[in-house]
Order: sequence, then C-alpha cells, then structure tokens
Amino acid sequence: MHSTITSLSPGIARITRFSPHRQKPEGAGDMTQTNAVWVMNRHADGPMSDDNLVLREQPMPEPGEGEIRVRGVYLSLDPTNRVWLSPRYTYLPPIPLGDPMRGFIIGVVDKSRAPGWAEGDIAYGLMQWARYSIINPDRTAFMMKMPAPTEVSLEASICALAMNAHTAYYGLLLKGQPRPGDTVLISGAAGATGVQAGQIAKIAGCRVVGIAGGAEKCAMLVNELGFDAAIDYKAENVLEAIGRTCPDGVDIFFDNVGGPILDAALAHLAMGARVVICGGISDYDNIEDPDALYGVKNHFMLLMRRARMEGFVVFDFLGGADQQRCERDLTRWFQAGRLKYQAHVVEGIEHAFPSLKLLFNGGNRGKLLVRLDRD
Amino acid sequence: MHSTITSLSPGIARITRFSPHRQKPEGAGDMTQTNAVWVMNRHADGPMSDDNLVLREQPMPEPGEGEIRVRGVYLSLDPTNRVWLSPRYTYLPPIPLGDPMRGFIIGVVDKSRAPGWAEGDIAYGLMQWARYSIINPDRTAFMMKMPAPTEVSLEASICALAMNAHTAYYGLLLKGQPRPGDTVLISGAAGATGVQAGQIAKIAGCRVVGIAGGAEKCAMLVNELGFDAAIDYKAENVLEAIGRTCPDGVDIFFDNVGGPILDAALAHLAMGARVVICGGISDYDNIEDPDALYGVKNHFMLLMRRARMEGFVVFDFLGGADQQRCERDLTRWFQAGRLKYQAHVVEGIEHAFPSLKLLFNGGNRGKLLVRLDRD
Repeated sequence: MHSTITSLSPGIARITRFSPHRQKPEGAGDMTQTNAVWVMNRHADGPMSDDNLVLREQPMPEPGEGEIRVRGVYLSLDPTNRVWLSPRYTYLPPIPLGDPMRGFIIGVVDKSRAPGWAEGDIAYGLMQWARYSIINPDRTAFMMKMPAPTEVSLEASICALAMNAHTAYYGLLLKGQPRPGDTVLISGAAGATGVQAGQIAKIAGCRVVGIAGGAEKCAMLVNELGFDAAIDYKAENVLEAIGRTCPDGVDIFFDNVGGPILDAALAHLAMGARVVICGGISDYDNIEDPDALYGVKNHFMLLMRRARMEGFVVFDFLGGADQQRCERDLTRWFQAGRLKYQAHVVEGIEHAFPSLKLLFNGGNRGKLLVRLDRD
Repeated sequence: MHSTITSLSPGIARITRFSPHRQKPEGAGDMTQTNAVWVMNRHADGPMSDDNLVLREQPMPEPGEGEIRVRGVYLSLDPTNRVWLSPRYTYLPPIPLGDPMRGFIIGVVDKSRAPGWAEGDIAYGLMQWARYSIINPDRTAFMMKMPAPTEVSLEASICALAMNAHTAYYGLLLKGQPRPGDTVLISGAAGATGVQAGQIAKIAGCRVVGIAGGAEKCAMLVNELGFDAAIDYKAENVLEAIGRTCPDGVDIFFDNVGGPILDAALAHLAMGARVVICGGISDYDNIEDPDALYGVKNHFMLLMRRARMEGFVVFDFLGGADQQRCERDLTRWFQAGRLKYQAHVVEGIEHAFPSLKLLFNGGNRGKLLVRLDRD
C-alpha cells in the first residue's frame, strides 16, 4: 500500500506523495469500459473481517434523466463506515448484500443529465465506494457542489469544507451552543472531525482540550491547531487528566469515542453542560450485540449537573436553514487559515477496505482518504 | 404506624383516615416548649439504615428579622430524600452531621417577621423534617405561599399544586416539549410526580403509557387517571411491553427510575425523542459508589435516533419566567378536576424516617405524606 501524509494546511502544507502517479487498480479491468465497486459481501457482526466487502468489476454506469455521473477523485474513509457494515438498522438502513458500499466521494462530473450540473463541476456527497457513481443530486441525502480546483484543491475541499467539517460545525455550534469562555472537551480530537470541531471551538472563543492517542497527536493538537491542552489517553488516567485540564468542569463534551472516555467526561460536567454525541468508535464492533455494549455509569450526572446529552447526524442538517451559513463560515475560516487539516492519502481503490482499519488502530495521521483517480 | 389512604380526588375523594385525631409524637416532649427535629446522624453509604436520621427534641426556634416560623402540617416524603442522605455533593450539598434533615413541608405561619407574610398564611417549601421550621422566604430555594384552606385543602395543595406537580410541569412541558399526538412513556408512573406528569401529558394531547409495579397501580393509571396503557414491570418483560404499547416509538420518556427500565425505553426511542431524567430511584443506593451504578448500554440510541437525554432539578425553575404560568395552569387544571391525586398519610413525625422505605419497596399507595399536626 502506498500512502502519503499531507501536513497541516493551507499555510504550511507540504505535499510529499510517495506514489505521485496514478496506479491502475488491480483486478478492476479497463477503466474506460468498466467500473470498480466495493460491494457488500458479508455484514459485520463484530470486528471487521477481510471479506465484509469485495471489489467487483461492473459495467460502466450511464446517468438517467435527472442524474449525473461522477468520476471519483477521493474517497473519504470514516469511522461510521463500520456502522454501515452492520446488518441492523442503525441511523441509516443496512446495505443489502451485493449492493455497493456507501461512502463520501469528491469527484468530477463527467456526464450530466441533471439541471444545474455541468461536465467539469466538482461534486461531493454520499455516493459509493466506486470509481464512478451515478447520483440524482436532488434525491441524495448529502450532495454539494464544491469550489473549482483553481480555488480550493479537491484534497482541501474534502478535508476542510466537506462532511467532517459540517459535522463539527453543526454538532459544536448548534448542539453544543458554545459561549465564549466555555471549556470544550473533545474526544477523538486528532480525527478528521475532532480537529475541525476543536478549531471551530477556538473560533467561538472557547478553551479547548483534546483527547487523543499518543504524544505525537497530542503535540499536534496543541502546537499546530491551537488547542489549550491535550490528554494522551494511552499514557494518562483520563478521569484524572480531565479534572486537571478542566478545573472549572466541562461545558461541552464533543464525543467521538464513547465507552470509558464518555464516562470520565460525564464525571466532570459543569452545571448546564452539553454532551454532543457525534460518534462512539470504541463500541462500533458491538452494535450488533447490545449486551456487549459498554454500560455508561455516570449518566446520572446529567441530573446532578442539569445537563443534556444529545446525538445528531449531519445528514439531518442538509438543506436546512443553517446550511448556507455553514458553507459560508467554513469557506471564510478556511481562506483565513483558521481551519487547518492534515490528509493521509492511500493510493488506489483496491486499498480502500484494507485501509479502513487504520481508523480503529490509530494508524492514520490526519484525514484518511483513498485516491481513486487524478484530480 | 397509623396510615390512611385518600383516594383519587378532588371529584372522587374518600377520606378514610385510620387515626383521625392528632397524636402526640412520642419522645418529642411538650410541643408548646420544644421542637421535634429529625437530624443527620450518619450518612447513607448504600442501603438506608435505621440510624441515618434520629429524632431530637430541640428548643422552640424563634424567627429573626426577615424570617417566618412555620408550624408544619404535612411533611412530603420523596425518593430524592434518599439522595439527600448521601455524604457526597449530589445536586445539592450534603447535610452536615447533626443538622436537620431537609424536606418539603406545608404548614401555617405562626410568627412572621418577614414582609409580605402574616400569621395564618399557608407556606410551602423546602424546610426541615420538624414540627416547626424557621425560614427566610426570600433566601429559600423553594418557597411559595399556597391557597387558604378554605379554597384548597392543605392535603390537596401539597399533592397536586406543590413540588411534585411543579416537577412534572417543568419536566414534561419545558424539557419534554410535547406535541399533540406524541407518545409519552413514564416510569414510576404511579408515584407522586408520575401521576401528575401523566395527567399533564394527557392535557397536552399526548398518548400516555405508564410503567408501574403491580396490577393495582396499573389499573389505577388507566381507569382513574386516563392513561392509555400501563406496563406492570413486576409481571411483564418491559422491553417487549414498551414495543407493544408504543408501536410508533417513544417521543418523550419521563424517567423516575433509571437502570434497566431506562435501557429498555432507550431501545424504543422515536426519531428526535426527548428523555427527561427526573430521577433514578433504582440506583439511589449506589450513588456513593459509582462502580456499583447500573451501566446504561443503549445510550447509543441517542445518536441513532437523533435524540436527547436531559436531567433537570425543579429548584432551577423557581423564580424563573415560567413559575407564574406553572402555578396558574396547575390551579386551573386542578379546579377543573383534571389533576387528580391520591394521598397516603402516615400520622406522626416519629414515623417519618421509618416510612421513607415505603417509597423504595412499593409500599405506598399515592403521594406519601407525614401528618405533623392538625390543619
């Protein structure tokens, strides 16, 4: 597997790709005639296994009336992809066996039969783990037109202006409702959503403490992204460290992890705190078996501290009243250098599913992307 | 112990007191010279024991400038009294050893040095487990002037217009935010707060399902209070029964119980549901030992269902913008016969602490009161 890490950008980006040239995916045939698609082969009923998804060669799809065809450039790998492997209804219906895996893609429209979309437009949204996706832009849960590559690179768009950033924006600002001076604690803080949530919390005038795994990630949060403090959950007692770094309590806990880290944060809630459940990566292998899920013991603190815990899904905000403001704010902050990102790029669609595990073993360094094709 | 149960009122009240005459509390001396006070003797560090509180004879207290003296008529016994026995800071500071136990009292002002209060006024609020309490009405967390006995009996006031009803009102309406047609599930539904919450939910146009222990309580909820269905947690599989009685999911869960019942309700949340944590009686014996607390496994459903779980404490609403509306609405609904109650009266302050356990073994039938003196 070839991979490359783009360091924090836009101001200080250093592109050091190990494999700058396009690779022809193995086993995917001639791309001018066929498509390469990861399809659901076996749902996950615990830890992921190598045969949950298989890469298939399929006929090149053609757009129907009202549809566009998108040539994917980057596929986003996200922890919630594991949730989508479940045979159960989670926050979305399960993917039927034999159907394509869903995923967030940024790419170029190469055929359009949809009003408002032209060849060459940059499309981003919920598509498929495939080189080419057919989408009806009006009927897709998450679909946006992105800036042209001359303004913002596709890599920067998908890292700093797309789903993770929208998730951070809605979750932190609309659900968390920060006030200047609030203490914001973020778990999974070095992840693609966590880094954006932390930077947005700083923009909102908050003190920000991040929880991440390892000294390198913690140093990045503080030194590169302006977090006020970081907790290394692999080396520290998290319960004690939250108390030390959040001496006035936690006003907003933006949680990507769940499990014992959620319990530790609940123990330190300030009066009137807001716990925003963005994800729960520590328990994704257990969602098929509720008995195996971690039991949260400190939920009682919601009563003691008159606090609230709320889950949200970014799809629900699309097309809503706040979307325009979200897109405008993110673009403005990005252009001002206030939303940095780090990309970890894996080359070639054939490495997509094997690379997903990097998100669960801490192996990625920044936003994990699979490069499907040239920009 | 003498006790009496007043059946549902006001329309169908049958007062059948077993001991209608005032009893002189044992060991409390001459009431014209001294006061009888339950004081903190040993904090609870698990199940309650008989020596947590002791009844002491104390000098008759005199009000200072700005204070009133209240001759208590009824002491309210509430599950949260167990929380107040804790040596830990919960949602209120712990009660120091030797200090009086706090409690909700309704009584008659027999001396006043406070502006706006006169002898003979009916006072209700957070006082002491005592025959006489000294209160500064302006500095007390929960203090209200209640209707004169000629308008509403003191028993009816404390059952249907006081703390439990305020708790139900704020929790259900402000935190639960019901819409007509919502399905509201209530645990501890036959308790003093539960019955008020259920009736208020019906007034708000909701379908209401109550969870209670035993066929008698369940029948009372449906036949006397107009609940749409009831679940007997002692005889039924609660998880299955919630699914059967709430086929479109639970829009509001008003929880007084916590533990496995909370987990079962979380499994059946509707999209956008609100879980209102009013109490968690199943775990009150474990609040001193977080490891012993029940671990909630289905909190993940907050994410899946885009739902929120929020704790609240009724004190926080006192003096707020909604208090006048709360008092006006409760009075109006009570006078219209839409807020029924059932009182379970124990005679004599000396039975106060021994009677508290009735709340935890299901032994009470209705709002549990200790009669301290004649009206």
